[in-house]
Amino acid sequence: MKPDGSTLWAKDLPLDVAIHRFTVGEDPDTDLALLAWDALGSAAHARMLASAGLLEPADAAALVRGLKRIANLARQNAFPIPPHMEDGHTAIEADLTRSLGPVGQRIHLGRSRNDQVILALRLYLRDALLRLGVRVSDLAQAFLGFAREHQQTPLPGYTHLRRAMPSTFGMWGAAFAEGLLEELEALQSVYQRLDRCPLGSAAGFGVPLPIDRELTAKLLGFSKVQRSPIDVQNSRGRHETALLQWAASTGGVMEKFLWDVSFYSTEEFGFLKLPDAFTTGSSIMPQKKNPDVVELARGRCRELRGNAGLVDQIGTGLPSSYHRDLQLLKRPVIQGLRQADELFAVLARLVPALKVNAEATATASTDELYAAHQAYVYVQGGLPFREAYRKVAQQIQEGTFAPDRAALTATHLGGAGNLGLDDLAADLAAARAWIETRRELQAEAEAALWAS
Amino acid sequence: MKPDGSTLWAKDLPLDVAIHRFTVGEDPDTDLALLAWDALGSAAHARMLASAGLLEPADAAALVRGLKRIANLARQNAFPIPPHMEDGHTAIEADLTRSLGPVGQRIHLGRSRNDQVILALRLYLRDALLRLGVRVSDLAQAFLGFAREHQQTPLPGYTHLRRAMPSTFGMWGAAFAEGLLEELEALQSVYQRLDRCPLGSAAGFGVPLPIDRELTAKLLGFSKVQRSPIDVQNSRGRHETALLQWAASTGGVMEKFLWDVSFYSTEEFGFLKLPDAFTTGSSIMPQKKNPDVVELARGRCRELRGNAGLVDQIGTGLPSSYHRDLQLLKRPVIQGLRQADELFAVLARLVPALKVNAEATATASTDELYAAHQAYVYVQGGLPFREAYRKVAQQIQEGTFAPDRAALTATHLGGAGNLGLDDLAADLAAARAWIETRRELQAEAEAALWAS
Amino acid sequence: MKPDGSTLWAKDLPLDVAIHRFTVGEDPDTDLALLAWDALGSAAHARMLASAGLLEPADAAALVRGLKRIANLARQNAFPIPPHMEDGHTAIEADLTRSLGPVGQRIHLGRSRNDQVILALRLYLRDALLRLGVRVSDLAQAFLGFAREHQQTPLPGYTHLRRAMPSTFGMWGAAFAEGLLEELEALQSVYQRLDRCPLGSAAGFGVPLPIDRELTAKLLGFSKVQRSPIDVQNSRGRHETALLQWAASTGGVMEKFLWDVSFYSTEEFGFLKLPDAFTTGSSIMPQKKNPDVVELARGRCRELRGNAGLVDQIGTGLPSSYHRDLQLLKRPVIQGLRQADELFAVLARLVPALKVNAEATATASTDELYAAHQAYVYVQGGLPFREAYRKVAQQIQEGTFAPDRAALTATHLGGAGNLGLDDLAADLAAARAWIETRRELQAEAEAALWAS
Amino acid sequence: MKPDGSTLWAKDLPLDVAIHRFTVGEDPDTDLALLAWDALGSAAHARMLASAGLLEPADAAALVRGLKRIANLARQNAFPIPPHMEDGHTAIEADLTRSLGPVGQRIHLGRSRNDQVILALRLYLRDALLRLGVRVSDLAQAFLGFAREHQQTPLPGYTHLRRAMPSTFGMWGAAFAEGLLEELEALQSVYQRLDRCPLGSAAGFGVPLPIDRELTAKLLGFSKVQRSPIDVQNSRGRHETALLQWAASTGGVMEKFLWDVSFYSTEEFGFLKLPDAFTTGSSIMPQKKNPDVVELARGRCRELRGNAGLVDQIGTGLPSSYHRDLQLLKRPVIQGLRQADELFAVLARLVPALKVNAEATATASTDELYAAHQAYVYVQGGLPFREAYRKVAQQIQEGTFAPDRAALTATHLGGAGNLGLDDLAADLAAARAWIETRRELQAEAEAALWAS
Repeated sequence: MKPDGSTLWAKDLPLDVAIHRFTVGEDPDTDLALLAWDALGSAAHARMLASAGLLEPADAAALVRGLKRIANLARQNAFPIPPHMEDGHTAIEADLTRSLGPVGQRIHLGRSRNDQVILALRLYLRDALLRLGVRVSDLAQAFLGFAREHQQTPLPGYTHLRRAMPSTFGMWGAAFAEGLLEELEALQSVYQRLDRCPLGSAAGFGVPLPIDRELTAKLLGFSKVQRSPIDVQNSRGRHETALLQWAASTGGVMEKFLWDVSFYSTEEFGFLKLPDAFTTGSSIMPQKKNPDVVELARGRCRELRGNAGLVDQIGTGLPSSYHRDLQLLKRPVIQGLRQADELFAVLARLVPALKVNAEATATASTDELYAAHQAYVYVQGGLPFREAYRKVAQQIQEGTFAPDRAALTATHLGGAGNLGLDDLAADLAAARAWIETRRELQAEAEAALWAS
Repeated sequence: MKPDGSTLWAKDLPLDVAIHRFTVGEDPDTDLALLAWDALGSAAHARMLASAGLLEPADAAALVRGLKRIANLARQNAFPIPPHMEDGHTAIEADLTRSLGPVGQRIHLGRSRNDQVILALRLYLRDALLRLGVRVSDLAQAFLGFAREHQQTPLPGYTHLRRAMPSTFGMWGAAFAEGLLEELEALQSVYQRLDRCPLGSAAGFGVPLPIDRELTAKLLGFSKVQRSPIDVQNSRGRHETALLQWAASTGGVMEKFLWDVSFYSTEEFGFLKLPDAFTTGSSIMPQKKNPDVVELARGRCRELRGNAGLVDQIGTGLPSSYHRDLQLLKRPVIQGLRQADELFAVLARLVPALKVNAEATATASTDELYAAHQAYVYVQGGLPFREAYRKVAQQIQEGTFAPDRAALTATHLGGAGNLGLDDLAADLAAARAWIETRRELQAEAEAALWAS
Repeated sequence: MKPDGSTLWAKDLPLDVAIHRFTVGEDPDTDLALLAWDALGSAAHARMLASAGLLEPADAAALVRGLKRIANLARQNAFPIPPHMEDGHTAIEADLTRSLGPVGQRIHLGRSRNDQVILALRLYLRDALLRLGVRVSDLAQAFLGFAREHQQTPLPGYTHLRRAMPSTFGMWGAAFAEGLLEELEALQSVYQRLDRCPLGSAAGFGVPLPIDRELTAKLLGFSKVQRSPIDVQNSRGRHETALLQWAASTGGVMEKFLWDVSFYSTEEFGFLKLPDAFTTGSSIMPQKKNPDVVELARGRCRELRGNAGLVDQIGTGLPSSYHRDLQLLKRPVIQGLRQADELFAVLARLVPALKVNAEATATASTDELYAAHQAYVYVQGGLPFREAYRKVAQQIQEGTFAPDRAALTATHLGGAGNLGLDDLAADLAAARAWIETRRELQAEAEAALWAS
Repeated sequence: MKPDGSTLWAKDLPLDVAIHRFTVGEDPDTDLALLAWDALGSAAHARMLASAGLLEPADAAALVRGLKRIANLARQNAFPIPPHMEDGHTAIEADLTRSLGPVGQRIHLGRSRNDQVILALRLYLRDALLRLGVRVSDLAQAFLGFAREHQQTPLPGYTHLRRAMPSTFGMWGAAFAEGLLEELEALQSVYQRLDRCPLGSAAGFGVPLPIDRELTAKLLGFSKVQRSPIDVQNSRGRHETALLQWAASTGGVMEKFLWDVSFYSTEEFGFLKLPDAFTTGSSIMPQKKNPDVVELARGRCRELRGNAGLVDQIGTGLPSSYHRDLQLLKRPVIQGLRQADELFAVLARLVPALKVNAEATATASTDELYAAHQAYVYVQGGLPFREAYRKVAQQIQEGTFAPDRAALTATHLGGAGNLGLDDLAADLAAARAWIETRRELQAEAEAALWAS
């Protein structure tokens, strides 16, 4: 019995077919995600060539029109990459040449396949990062909403998975909002890495033509040129890893949330109920509602970390400049970004759907949780800590401990009585605006290019 | 402009569709590799049920016939999994029920989806491991052939990438044969992990029916039963990781070979020439032959490591028993095994095709490489090492150093003059026989099942 | 304010001091663990040289005596490595030369620093593996004891952290015994990798002297010679990674146990109580008992995985033969092995100390857990599954569901009524005997060497 | 024979000793790096308490004086942590109480061990990051100097380790300067994560006292308060990983440099010579100079990646809030930061010491490297590419290819004729200034605290 695909490498496979398969790999699939970006980058290149006097304006215009058509098709998944072509870049050039004749080939003046691919990837990664940023903004927003709604709902605060201190569902929700906010700020730095135009580096050593790298950068909405052509090559892997590590770190914020939900929703805790849409029944146990979505999402957080590690492995350990090893980056990068997108999207739907069992958490929020808080207050009143501690312990033992919960609520910034949600909301709005501004800027650059 | 697939998670996607997509994930794709194994495992289950008096013999026979038909279709990639079904297991049951009526459902007596899936995976992994073992045996064989052919071809021995000692291409090739042989022996241990039948563990706590777990194990060619139903669940991830770490370790043996080839085939070293079939030209540099296959293979060795790490991440960090997180293991496991298969297959073709430039390596094998060897001989003759060392150094300086190369060839086991290739060949034959025996045993068990 | 150690790299540090520090690294510390092994390997080398006629018998005897003295001191941590010496190997040679004169230097005939270091490491790793094997055997034994003691103690069986099926603490304990047993069997394969004598490979290309590699192997209790001198070098990293991945996989078995304990010992579950010796109190919360040992042990399981990954990173990505990068393996390997040893040792003490709250688990083991089991029985009696399922559901709803628990206990191999503990105990005894046999064999070889 | 340390876990070790060792772990060692930071954080806390009316001004002053003394001792490694104390925080409090009496204990009002530890770590990490930033600035500076010096020195440009295009040593050096510059900009984002004061979060749920978290933040030079006390706990691991991933990414830039140096300094390439101070000789091969420093540095780049992965493993996979697992982060974090510091320091010394063999690189920079460049020029002149390509190929074949090298030098931004070193220098100066500003700000805050 054979596993699917095993015949791919039957021993009698002709050598050239085998080698072709091995070298082409999964490019025809992965490149579907890059096609439209390749067309866009090529359009900017054509404009720059014309501006630098290296291409007739009419030829540039024809190329841009052709590329626009291809980009539109690609966006509708209507520009297939034929199996005999090794990748999407080849398919685009073939199409241009077929439709425009010799002019089609002039698009390749002053660049190499190398910087063409890196540019398409850069545009793709830049866009994917901002999209993820929007997702994470929505998700942080959902947590803020949750926190605001449950600002007064008590929840035992756990350390070591043991009940420790008074807390609220509001405090819990705000924690994830703030964690995600930190990631949204960190996103800006990943963006900065990507916000440098690689085109013009050619095969890694530039070209002896008067190309205008600053212009290409500007046409594509990049803030600056990645100057060193060698560093352009050397940044393959570095950039992908930074992006996926960011996604994994953001996933890490959510992993804690998902673990919390996983046990808050057990029969034993009973603090949260998952809406039916987010559970699956068991085929044999009528009473069971399994938290499959929560578990898949939690597993995906680990998958994001593992995937970032995989990309790091592939992209490192090499000398300077281009080596074909780097082609293997494409698949896990694109796969990882899609997985992150799905994860954050499903979570943004889960958070507002969580049902809080306020009765259960109120019951679990016993006076004992206030023991340390009360001791602090005695200490503030002048008692040495040990004495304060003994005093509270004795009260608990004698059953006379009756803490004034309101008075014992932390009112400093971040405390249960002062979550700072407005501050967080303002910071989140700023982080989101930063992202939206860049998305608009890029949309404008793109529109201008196609319109030109 | 949108990356391909971004519309999957459009904000207006109905919740049930979104959740269905998220929970089903890539199962319909990955399960294509498992279908035939699921059918086989189910056939054994049916036989056992009949033997235990839990199913009518005629029903069992009908089920086995139906499963055989499905397995045959699956092996020809002719048993599609409809998109509305969540996985291959469902598709098989639906087919059986359609064709056999109520009898089709009786296949599920005494097992749960859980142990059904684990069994299919176990059979798949067991088979994939042995297949990889055959690949690696072929590859080790290729290295032995290379070593035998080039037993006398000098090659400078490098340490720190600096010329150090006399060596031969035979010695070089033998090193990889021995490294792979170690992995083939280690394979047996991974096999031992997999060689335990999980069926009967049900959802992780067994079933109150008189099933005969030993019989199922025997019908499927397993050496023993994995006794603890909880451990059956707990071994998900553990087994996959062990298998992929083995593949990665084997890849690690090859990574060194590929690095060596990468620089031995530079213009600067010039010791090896890659046949044209294994290189690609440059679109702009006529003289260039790029070692793309070698580089992709080298990158794949890192990918195997990264993939093992990814699988390890997904499969760990959980309490006992089943959690849905584990579903995410399937894709990278199947992907990783295919990648390993391709890698070892392409390498087995590369090794015999390598062209040695014996002239270049002879030129590079200068007398100086024998300096330490000569000093050893003087030491053996009674000179203190420092004096021997000075004597050789002086000879070199004076240009009178004329080592007797034949006399200075290491003749102990493993030395350039005594590679022990026959020993290695014998060990390799034994390792291969071990694998083939198990493959035959399984083929027989399978044939017997279908024939019954 | 400076972090400790920052002055190490003050800008005005003389270059030679800086470089010395960088190249020596942590060797003087790590080598303390290797000293006695280096002495032992050297003793075997001396014996072999004498047997091969390369060293006077009297000189060999003197060397062995000196090495025995050093080994004894080292075992008592009484053989310090002076700071000006770069490593322990140098310190041993210096000591021998000091005490024996020129004879001391003859120990280096026919080997290089390279194979000397690898041999010491190999002996250390081989011993550490067997020691860990004893630890894990003890731990598996503890789980068997726990399982036997609690064979009848009910415990709800969880899937997805939701109550699912009837189970017992015995079933739970047996799962870890079986998981550890699998690792003890896998240990034999790691041992096989290490059970090959590297001495005689010199700097990676052998020596032109009539050394007897088979004899050295035999004197040190190795089953065979690692033939290829290049593969000896190439196996650095490969062996360490295999060993640490094994330790991490074994830790992975325990990680599930520790997560279970973490949950089972919460107030909310209340199934287990940790003995006071294994908890720490809170400085501010009198009622709290924190499961610090359990958490540190759980964290250590992740640390073992991370450490195996670190070692894998350091040891891979290089061409054949020796590169100084490999020196960096020593520290994390030795650190990782010690961490594993501590972990398994503390767990072997924890398991028998766990206090089961049988009342709580009995209360939690409600009739509903038997719903699926009962349905199976109805199915076996001829009812279609859907009908059986409905029947049970209705009984539960009407409050008439009264399952006969004894009749619904799984009695097949591995079921709650048939844990197969005697089988497991027999397998464990065999695995332990395998280890002890090798330990004795090595102790005998060592004793014979020193006595000679 | 026992590996060093094995007696730690002798079977007869009393349980309490064993558990103490296991829970304390390596804290007494690692905490030496944190002592002075703990003292500083405590001083700010004392000031805040006084300002908030929670502590007598005189008591605060006494505490600050005591802490200053401790910080000074710690900076001179003169404040040992006694073995019976579990960590440095305990040692500081014990010292204060010994010297100040009951006042010493008041330092703990309004905080818990939890936020105290996190604050000390945060201050340590923040400082370590900026220190690394200075190191990396120096290193980038060294590359700029190298690039400027060798702006005209030809070097073949390699792709796939095959000669491909004309390049220069200046272009090569500039690539690393730009890569490091990207990391220096990314550093700012890591800093932003750390630039948030955690104090006041107590055990993760705040305190019911009118503490002034904004003031503490200000006193310690933080830009803002980390508001959510839960997120403070949740950020353990997240912050350490971000910092170590940054270090690893920076190491990744250097890994390529080190691989290049490793190749360029072989006999076969001969483009670079390592100064003697950076090589070690062989004990048995007089002619050999081994690039040990380069190899150790290269290995360390992998170690940094592996270490970041280890820290990521330890710090993830947990529910919200504190769990003791997190204690295990300390050792690898501190170890990793020291390794990074050493690495960047040694590289900053290596770069200016590299000796370029301009003759060898000139010889290797043959006309053929200009083939593609020349073809481009013909294309620009109107020839279709295929024809241009054929023309050059023919010239090469006929031996008439005589490219005008000056005319074929890329003069666009980043090209060999226009490296943009002044731009890079300006950006580097800005990045360095950003770091220095923060270091001064912190030094001022610290001075103000101690002076107060």
